[in-house]
Amino acid sequence: MTTEGAGGDTAYPRPLYDVIRDTLRSDIAAGRLKTFDQLPSEAALQSRFSVSRITVRRAVGELAREGLAFAVPGKGWFVARPRAVQPLHALQGLAEAMAATGRSIRNRVLHVREEPATAYAAERLHLPEGTPVTAIRRLRLLDEAPLSVEDTWLPSALGQRLADMDLESRDVFAMLEGDLAVRLGRADLVIGAIAAAPPLTTLLEVTEGAPLLRIERLTHDAGGTPIDAEQLYYRADAFQYQVSVNR
Amino acid sequence: MTTEGAGGDTAYPRPLYDVIRDTLRSDIAAGRLKTFDQLPSEAALQSRFSVSRITVRRAVGELAREGLAFAVPGKGWFVARPRAVQPLHALQGLAEAMAATGRSIRNRVLHVREEPATAYAAERLHLPEGTPVTAIRRLRLLDEAPLSVEDTWLPSALGQRLADMDLESRDVFAMLEGDLAVRLGRADLVIGAIAAAPPLTTLLEVTEGAPLLRIERLTHDAGGTPIDAEQLYYRADAFQYQVSVNR
Repeated sequence: MTTEGAGGDTAYPRPLYDVIRDTLRSDIAAGRLKTFDQLPSEAALQSRFSVSRITVRRAVGELAREGLAFAVPGKGWFVARPRAVQPLHALQGLAEAMAATGRSIRNRVLHVREEPATAYAAERLHLPEGTPVTAIRRLRLLDEAPLSVEDTWLPSALGQRLADMDLESRDVFAMLEGDLAVRLGRADLVIGAIAAAPPLTTLLEVTEGAPLLRIERLTHDAGGTPIDAEQLYYRADAFQYQVSVNR
Repeated sequence: MTTEGAGGDTAYPRPLYDVIRDTLRSDIAAGRLKTFDQLPSEAALQSRFSVSRITVRRAVGELAREGLAFAVPGKGWFVARPRAVQPLHALQGLAEAMAATGRSIRNRVLHVREEPATAYAAERLHLPEGTPVTAIRRLRLLDEAPLSVEDTWLPSALGQRLADMDLESRDVFAMLEGDLAVRLGRADLVIGAIAAAPPLTTLLEVTEGAPLLRIERLTHDAGGTPIDAEQLYYRADAFQYQVSVNR
C-alpha cells in the first residue's frame, strides 16, 4: 500500500496533475474549450499551476488517454472531437444508430464483387470453400469524416440482390429486412483493437499504427443460419461502444 | 462496382494474397505453426507462390490485422499468442471469466490509497467532489504475462474494507459480494481503444503507441447506487470481448 501525491498538510493530498486535468476537463465539458480549440500551452499551464513540465504532461496525457485531447507535433494540444457512441443492447446498423443521435452516415462503396468464398468466409457462413459469395467493402463517413471500413460477405443469393441497391446511404441490415424480407436474428460480436496498417491508413486518414477498434460480427437470420459475415474497423478516436450488463 | 484479383480463366479469380493468407491461417489453426513459431520468410513465400514481395506482405499483413501474427523488426513474422476472450453477456470479474477457460489471473497491487474524489470519481460515484474515496490500481497478469491495468475508485466505506483483503488474487466483484455482502446490479460499459503511453507502456510491456482496449465500467449495487468506478486498459494483442445481441 503506497501513498502518492503532492505534499501538503491536508489529510488527503491531491496530486497537482489531477487538479490540472480536472480543470481542463471542466473547461471542455462546459464548452469554454470547444472541439479543435488549442489547449493552453505547456508553458502557460506550468506558470499558472507552478508545476514542472512533467506534471503538465502527465495531466494532458491523461486527457489524451480519455480521448478528450490530442497532440499535433510541433503545435501543441487540441480538444478532440467527441466520439460517436453506438449502444450494443440491440443489433443495429451504423446509420440507424447514428440517426438516433442526429448524426449522418454516408458510404463510399469501394467494391462489390462476386468471389469464391475464402476459408474465412466459408467458415463464417457455413458454406463449402470456393462457393460464390458477394464481398462488399465500404468506407463509412460520419458527418462526412472517415469513421470505419466495413468488409461484408454474404451468400450470393442475397448479396447479388443487394449489389444493385443503395449501398451509398443504407445499412445492410435495413436492406435485408426492408427490401429482401429477411428476418434477422442473433449476431455474435468479437471486439478488439489493432494498429492501423495500409490500406486502412489511407482510407481512414490515420497514421500507421493508430489504434482502431476491430469488430468481427456474424449475423444470423431468425432461423439461426449465418447470412452476413463482417469485419469492421473503426477509428478509435471517433467511436466507442456502449453496453450494460447485469450480474 | 469493381473486380479485383489475380488474372486467370476461372469465373471467380481468387487473389493470390488470399491463397497465401488462408494457407498460413490453416497452418496455424491446425497447429502446424504454433504460438511464437516463425512464419516462413518473405523470400520463401515469394518463391513458393511465385508472387511479388508486395503480395506476400499483404497476405501476412492481413494475418497481423486479425491478431494471428506479429512482426519482430529485423527478424521476421511470428505466430501470435491466442487472445483471451471475455464474454459480456453477464457482469464478471476477470479472474472469474479466465478461470472458466482454464487460465489464471494474478494481480500486482500498484497502489491502494484514500484520496479526495476528483471531478471524475465524484461524477461517477455521485459523491461531492473531494469526498474521501479509495483508489486501487492493479496490474493484472494472465498466465504470468501482463494483460491489463485497472484503476478502481470506491466509496471509502467499502474501499477501506477491501484494502486489507486479498487484492493480489481476487476480483473486486467477488470480494464485494462474498465478503462485504453487497448485492451487485447493473454495470455500464463504454468500450474504446487508445494508443499506449507511459506509464501504461512500462506496466504492460508494450511500445509507445501500441493499441490498448480501454473500458470504462461503472458498477451499481442491486439498488442502483454506483459503487465501483473503473478504467481498464487491456493489451489489444492479448484480449478481446465477446458479445451476442438480438435484433
